Amino acid sequence: MKELVIDLLNERGVQIKDIAQIAYDLQSPYNPQLTLEECVISVEKVFEKREVQYTILTGVALDKLAEEGSLDEPLSNIITRDEPLYGIDESLAMTIANIYGTIGVTSFGFLDKQKTGIIEELDNSAENVNTFLDDIVAGIASAASARLAHRHKEKQQVDIS
Amino acid sequence: MKELVIDLLNERGVQIKDIAQIAYDLQSPYNPQLTLEECVISVEKVFEKREVQYTILTGVALDKLAEEGSLDEPLSNIITRDEPLYGIDESLAMTIANIYGTIGVTSFGFLDKQKTGIIEELDNSAENVNTFLDDIVAGIASAASARLAHRHKEKQQVDIS
Amino acid sequence: MKELVIDLLNERGVQIKDIAQIAYDLQSPYNPQLTLEECVISVEKVFEKREVQYTILTGVALDKLAEEGSLDEPLSNIITRDEPLYGIDESLAMTIANIYGTIGVTSFGFLDKQKTGIIEELDNSAENVNTFLDDIVAGIASAASARLAHRHKEKQQVDIS
Amino acid sequence: MKELVIDLLNERGVQIKDIAQIAYDLQSPYNPQLTLEECVISVEKVFEKREVQYTILTGVALDKLAEEGSLDEPLSNIITRDEPLYGIDESLAMTIANIYGTIGVTSFGFLDKQKTGIIEELDNSAENVNTFLDDIVAGIASAASARLAHRHKEKQQVDIS
Ligand SMILES: [Ca+2]
Ligand SMILES: [Ca+2]
Ligand SMILES: [Ca+2]
Ligand SMILES: [Ca+2]
Repeated sequence: MKELVIDLLNERGVQIKDIAQIAYDLQSPYNPQLTLEECVISVEKVFEKREVQYTILTGVALDKLAEEGSLDEPLSNIITRDEPLYGIDESLAMTIANIYGTIGVTSFGFLDKQKTGIIEELDNSAENVNTFLDDIVAGIASAASARLAHRHKEKQQVDIS
Repeated sequence: MKELVIDLLNERGVQIKDIAQIAYDLQSPYNPQLTLEECVISVEKVFEKREVQYTILTGVALDKLAEEGSLDEPLSNIITRDEPLYGIDESLAMTIANIYGTIGVTSFGFLDKQKTGIIEELDNSAENVNTFLDDIVAGIASAASARLAHRHKEKQQVDIS
Repeated sequence: MKELVIDLLNERGVQIKDIAQIAYDLQSPYNPQLTLEECVISVEKVFEKREVQYTILTGVALDKLAEEGSLDEPLSNIITRDEPLYGIDESLAMTIANIYGTIGVTSFGFLDKQKTGIIEELDNSAENVNTFLDDIVAGIASAASARLAHRHKEKQQVDIS
Repeated sequence: MKELVIDLLNERGVQIKDIAQIAYDLQSPYNPQLTLEECVISVEKVFEKREVQYTILTGVALDKLAEEGSLDEPLSNIITRDEPLYGIDESLAMTIANIYGTIGVTSFGFLDKQKTGIIEELDNSAENVNTFLDDIVAGIASAASARLAHRHKEKQQVDIS
């Protein structure tokens, strides 16, 4: 299923490298030796988690159903215009952000305000409904960054001892 | 919108009284003077919350889309057979359970294991897909019960002082 | 108890006005008519919530115990030097941020990275241990801002109809 | 630090085997071949997580400080008599329950109502303040059980393919 959800994101205009870049931007200030390649690997690890796969399947399905006009009102309208108080998109994405602990959730909150890179592109897309997708991308990048933070920390402690 | 989501639940076989009964069963051991009528009022209050309304709209839409065969695979199959590790249904419902604090979340966990009343009927329905609905009902009952717990407590403290 | 926790924050160098200013900075871009006075009222409302009061009591107690050297190792050292992976301070504060829904949690994540105003002062204090306090202040400001966002939205919808 | 927190729990009357038994009771209905030994291993894995270690350190410290009379009022009284609306004990423990996803949180809610085994003993202790400890034990057992549920599921899927 990992390949299936990666294909689904590609189809919606999101590449692993785009997400890895956001994780890099989040984590590199705390770890100057970090490489983009390590961020790609960390994003790949996040995609292996079943709850991440299920969240992507569900969120992207809702974006596509809204886009095709297959949802009833008022939900169709709420998702299509990305109603700011809807909140289900952020709630779902925060369960991804949270898989490596609290740090991921605070990074997610930061990205939610400072939309950067692919997140901004998704948010401004004229063609597609990306109400769930922009938050999902932020959630994956936040989780990948939190995973790197934990590993960096553990490496430092081993180096000291 | 409150009326709209109550109608939507009625259409799916759930009455406010059914949810109030579960809230009553949760809370009456701690508050013997509690009436079913107070539980109905508490459930009504929960329905006024916008995040509750949005969660109902979204969850019931996914149940209905799965039922009609309008979702892509593998999501269609996952929701239709209520895959136990899916977890998105419980995550969404927990945001309802949580609106009056932690007590609601622990009640939700209890109901998730001890499916009682309408929750059991929904879970066993042969006709309908209720993968989200059973958890939504548990979430509303848990929130309504948490709200009553807080009010009961505050009343006790006023009586003492 | 509301007065007691406000006094406790004052004693630790935090005034309601300082928190209201952060809520104002968060919310005024979306609501240009917002006044600082409305933010003060919103912060006061957040202080009325029992879970907020309990979180303040607990978090400030841990800061003070660490400061006095009354905690056992390794907890004393972890809290005193604000160990970045500790996370309990953020988890507790997020329960405050969350009381008016998801928006509060994303604001909290933003403040956690972009420490502004009193949060930065607390974080840099040489005299006091503020490991919990800086996050608590961010949590209260985030909740107060989320409350204003919901009210602003509802007012707009009434104006349209 | 893993050994340190296990020692701390032993000192407070909790053995790994007691927690493993609760995980076994939660999970064995879904997996009849499960052994208590596998549950012991799963509990050991939960203890390796840094956020679990930090939560134990913090919660047990608060129990002990309350017991020794080292907390200020009203917090001392709230923790000592296990005030039902306090909620910080459950919030902290739920972050443990949540480390392997939503299933852990629902099991935690169940245990919170149906206190079994060592949880009931802790809850009824006349000598010790266990306000945090009973929830921490429930959180660890719930996480260990959620971990077994995920592994059981994955094994089943491999067997099918
Ligand atoms: Ca969105
Ligand atoms: Ca379900
Ligand atoms: Ca902090
Ligand atoms: Ca407790």
